[in-house]
Amino acid sequence: MTHAHAESSAAGRIVAATHHWPRGFRASVGAAAIKKPGRDDLALLAMPEGASAAAIFTRNLFAAAPIEVSRRHIRDSRGHASALILNSGCANAATGPRGLGNAQEMVDAVSIALGCACEAVLVNSTGVIGVQLPMDRIAPVIPKMATGIAEALDAGPLEPFARAIMTTDTKPKMSARRIELPDNRTVHVAGVAKGAGMIRPDMATMISVLATDAAVEPKALDRILRHAADASYHRISVDGDTSTNDSVFAFASGVAGACDEILLARAFREVACELARMIVCDGEGFERSLAVRVTGAATKTDALKVAETVASSLLVRTAITGGDPNWGRIVAAAGRAGVAFRPGDLELRVGGILIFRDGEPCPADSSAVRAAFNGSHVAVEISLGATDGATAETNSDEFLSCGLTTEYVRLNADYTT
Amino acid sequence: MTHAHAESSAAGRIVAATHHWPRGFRASVGAAAIKKPGRDDLALLAMPEGASAAAIFTRNLFAAAPIEVSRRHIRDSRGHASALILNSGCANAATGPRGLGNAQEMVDAVSIALGCACEAVLVNSTGVIGVQLPMDRIAPVIPKMATGIAEALDAGPLEPFARAIMTTDTKPKMSARRIELPDNRTVHVAGVAKGAGMIRPDMATMISVLATDAAVEPKALDRILRHAADASYHRISVDGDTSTNDSVFAFASGVAGACDEILLARAFREVACELARMIVCDGEGFERSLAVRVTGAATKTDALKVAETVASSLLVRTAITGGDPNWGRIVAAAGRAGVAFRPGDLELRVGGILIFRDGEPCPADSSAVRAAFNGSHVAVEISLGATDGATAETNSDEFLSCGLTTEYVRLNADYTT
Repeated sequence: MTHAHAESSAAGRIVAATHHWPRGFRASVGAAAIKKPGRDDLALLAMPEGASAAAIFTRNLFAAAPIEVSRRHIRDSRGHASALILNSGCANAATGPRGLGNAQEMVDAVSIALGCACEAVLVNSTGVIGVQLPMDRIAPVIPKMATGIAEALDAGPLEPFARAIMTTDTKPKMSARRIELPDNRTVHVAGVAKGAGMIRPDMATMISVLATDAAVEPKALDRILRHAADASYHRISVDGDTSTNDSVFAFASGVAGACDEILLARAFREVACELARMIVCDGEGFERSLAVRVTGAATKTDALKVAETVASSLLVRTAITGGDPNWGRIVAAAGRAGVAFRPGDLELRVGGILIFRDGEPCPADSSAVRAAFNGSHVAVEISLGATDGATAETNSDEFLSCGLTTEYVRLNADYTT
Repeated sequence: MTHAHAESSAAGRIVAATHHWPRGFRASVGAAAIKKPGRDDLALLAMPEGASAAAIFTRNLFAAAPIEVSRRHIRDSRGHASALILNSGCANAATGPRGLGNAQEMVDAVSIALGCACEAVLVNSTGVIGVQLPMDRIAPVIPKMATGIAEALDAGPLEPFARAIMTTDTKPKMSARRIELPDNRTVHVAGVAKGAGMIRPDMATMISVLATDAAVEPKALDRILRHAADASYHRISVDGDTSTNDSVFAFASGVAGACDEILLARAFREVACELARMIVCDGEGFERSLAVRVTGAATKTDALKVAETVASSLLVRTAITGGDPNWGRIVAAAGRAGVAFRPGDLELRVGGILIFRDGEPCPADSSAVRAAFNGSHVAVEISLGATDGATAETNSDEFLSCGLTTEYVRLNADYTT
């Protein structure tokens, strides 16, 4: 997940951009006192009719009611959308037929207020599981938000939207890139996210919304989104649980015209990776991040498996919190990943320092090793023996996690419903 | 893992017994100041020449040096052993060729001191990873322990052995059963264990030694051991990490003569299950145990997968610590187990109280629900919909875990090498 912030190619150049929606997108927020009064807990994003849409939804069997509705709409519309409505404070998950009816009612209200087709509206919720949405408070706010959309600036700031979908996040998560094309046109990619870490036990969701003003067909947008998610959201872990409401949406307004797909995919990936890093670093009780990079595996899948096993190990994650140069746990976690390699071939580096090789610890400067384990970011590199440079690089992968802290446990345990 | 302590059948009756080794076994301990002086850190178990032996070793690719030696010996001896030597304070793992030589040297010293074949001696270690054994301190103690064996009582107490292999365990773990056979003979099964939970980061091992005085062929003993381990050690989790030194040994001295295999297997299973529960309840920072029973799955494997996913979920385990009636996390964990079932079919009971059915929460007495989550043991039952009683029972499984506590994290993070 380490990508330069400015990448150039024959097709153009990607640079950081201010935190605004791309052209063609207008957003508004509203307060419906869903969980507590006085804060914005509804967020509406509107785009030109016929905009391309793609989405990745949770694979949890207990997908929330709004996920069912959105899944159907994106299929029926063949990848097009006019609006997305999100709420925080209630997940509308495990709510049975009434929950499904409420999700549908939210969508209908947006469709009426904005004057667009019902299946052109997507919806998701985040918050407490097993509680019904307060539709009596939500319904009157939606027309006001539609008025807000009519009055909103095109390509306005991301922040109000990013704030309205926060649950236990301590800060809004936003990222944006500008693609400068050879013909002097510019294309924008921007995104917002809310965290996967759950301070409060029932707020179990990662949601991200990515948008571009490039013209992209739904199928291409779907490819671009999957590529970006695979390099970002699928490479992070805060608590390993997949929620009932996890989702990533991507929209393309088309206003800025065509853009090279590879370049656009790179910009999406950069935005998604930056948001994913923000999610990890805003995880519950966050103190220190941990990146595990594995190279020289027999396959790329093997590399990911080892990286994920090490990055998710409770023993490794507690050692990282303690700043403990306890490489034995890292080696042992790699050894139980279910991936075949010769143990004698494994080389371990932490913060660039060679620590373990040929089945034995290496002589290393112990204060330097201690320092490598004590930074705000711990970089673990594991080589599994493929010495051919090209193969070692191809069959590699990386996973991002964080130290497991007493604060994480306290925050997750001390909640009383 | 709930088995009556007295089971009777046509073949005999199983009852609880005092914590002694079965006949034919003699044990002695020694202090070699491996990690710290003044405590017993070596344990030797001797049995008649030709005793049957079976073992299950860690599947971690970084199996420790003594595991390599024991694996070879049990193969070369075709399942026979005369002695087992264990040490605490140093795992002799990730120690390269020198570590392998040291494990061999321990075995040789026992073989010479007891006058038995080298491959009839098994060995394992537990403690810090990546540190060499202090052979200069261990070597002189072994002959003294052999003298101890010569002077020891046959079928002496389990406790000194159980104490000598402790690392971060707060208490020794012992269990014993007597089988009363119809012909008035008695057969004994006894066992000791040390914990899987790791307070100190490098002491990463579960070791158990099970013994019987029944006459059993090595192949039958291997079957009996695998059956017992499958119902016990393979159904618990403290931190999900498989260590470099995990092992379970089983020995049969044959002194008490033949015993019905089913009955013997049941006694082994009872002893192993009792030891496994002790391991969970002596896990680091233990406050509350959690049993997840899944019935009505499509297959037994599916039942285990769901039970293990729920019992291992960080969000579920922190909720259990908090005594939080947060059933949404349980349902969500079941839904991401990678097992196919109809979400609407899932029924959830906690402490016997029906909480979730038909995709919706059930009306339940909230103070009773709260009480079910606040006992010293939380019993979660998940039915996945197979209503045929016989199938529901067959396709079921159970997994035992415990609340994840701030103390667990503190203990695992606060260690400095």
